[in-house]
Amino acid sequence: MSDGAASYARTPRTTPTRYRERATWEQDAIHAVLDGTWLCHLGFIADGAPVVLPTVYARVGDRLYIHGSTGSRPMRGAKGEQGLPVCVTVTLVDGLVLTKSAFNHSVNFRSVVAHGTAHQVTDPEELSVALDALVDQAVPGRSAEVRPANAKELAATAVIRLVLDEVSAKTRDDDADDDEADLGLPYWAGVVPVSTVLGTPAPHASTTVPLPAHLRDLVG
Amino acid sequence: MSDGAASYARTPRTTPTRYRERATWEQDAIHAVLDGTWLCHLGFIADGAPVVLPTVYARVGDRLYIHGSTGSRPMRGAKGEQGLPVCVTVTLVDGLVLTKSAFNHSVNFRSVVAHGTAHQVTDPEELSVALDALVDQAVPGRSAEVRPANAKELAATAVIRLVLDEVSAKTRDDDADDDEADLGLPYWAGVVPVSTVLGTPAPHASTTVPLPAHLRDLVG
Repeated sequence: MSDGAASYARTPRTTPTRYRERATWEQDAIHAVLDGTWLCHLGFIADGAPVVLPTVYARVGDRLYIHGSTGSRPMRGAKGEQGLPVCVTVTLVDGLVLTKSAFNHSVNFRSVVAHGTAHQVTDPEELSVALDALVDQAVPGRSAEVRPANAKELAATAVIRLVLDEVSAKTRDDDADDDEADLGLPYWAGVVPVSTVLGTPAPHASTTVPLPAHLRDLVG
Repeated sequence: MSDGAASYARTPRTTPTRYRERATWEQDAIHAVLDGTWLCHLGFIADGAPVVLPTVYARVGDRLYIHGSTGSRPMRGAKGEQGLPVCVTVTLVDGLVLTKSAFNHSVNFRSVVAHGTAHQVTDPEELSVALDALVDQAVPGRSAEVRPANAKELAATAVIRLVLDEVSAKTRDDDADDDEADLGLPYWAGVVPVSTVLGTPAPHASTTVPLPAHLRDLVG
């Protein structure tokens, strides 16, 4: 999918059953959502039941690298050749959409849902790239200004790879949408913007250097 | 679990395999995390594969009510007597934890993972309570100042109920934690606070009333 194709393949499970007009399979749109944060929710099946764990990820081209620190269960499953069936979901919330009727309340958001089979990254070179990407996804440029992982740390790090293939994005970015009959009701309708903000960096006692450029850029 | 018990039962799948000291099964701690947001990630199995969808929820005592607007697939499964096995995960991000080594980077967060079998809410009275709670979870007090759902809207709304039972919370709230040998390195280490903020409410063209108290309280 990385050879210039504009869209990922559309499949039954990446075609929403409701609000289909909010969905897209365009690579650029999907990558833009994925590049907008670093937290994902990783879903897999353990002992026949669904499990959803929050963890960090990075996008490198058409690959998602997902950190396995939240538990070793998904990692064990992803170790073998057959890999681990996963669903990786990324959600950015942009607004509370408040309408005059309870029923029409909504949320402005951007989300990506990626399905596929994840495999554990075992090649040390790929693992090193993935670890740098995980640091840079949250703080661009930071991986060049930390001590890189050594061989022992690389061996102790569990990262899984999911190649983007069966993936879609969904977006709502719109005003309150009341029924015509409700528009005259004396209630407040509109949108309350929601955003994620970074506060003032608090240095650890061991920090002797000034705030580096990669953090000044990040926190504005 | 609602009759004064201080903790939810601890089971193998609510006992993390790593960082066990970050986990709790205490009701108050779990409820506090659940009351801190209104977005969850709902995991279930569809056609043998894991699916994770973002949606809104509300907590009412020991019950989570989860809105099914993100797709009808989970709703169909939850309709029968046997219900739908789900995992509901709620995550609040509090900080980026930046260390001098790439390896020790972390995240300050609070999360709840709830396992169980969800059932569709079909009783109109319970559905009405659930819909009010979904509105109030995001904007406390708002359900009293909107037009309530009518019978037709209630019938068109899919809400599933998950009784909290097999559930745990996990928290990291700490400074950067570098290895002793790295403390002298000339890199910046510390915590960058992360928070979700609400912006200035933007009224819809149909809004003729001033900003109500429930929104003034919300946006400070």
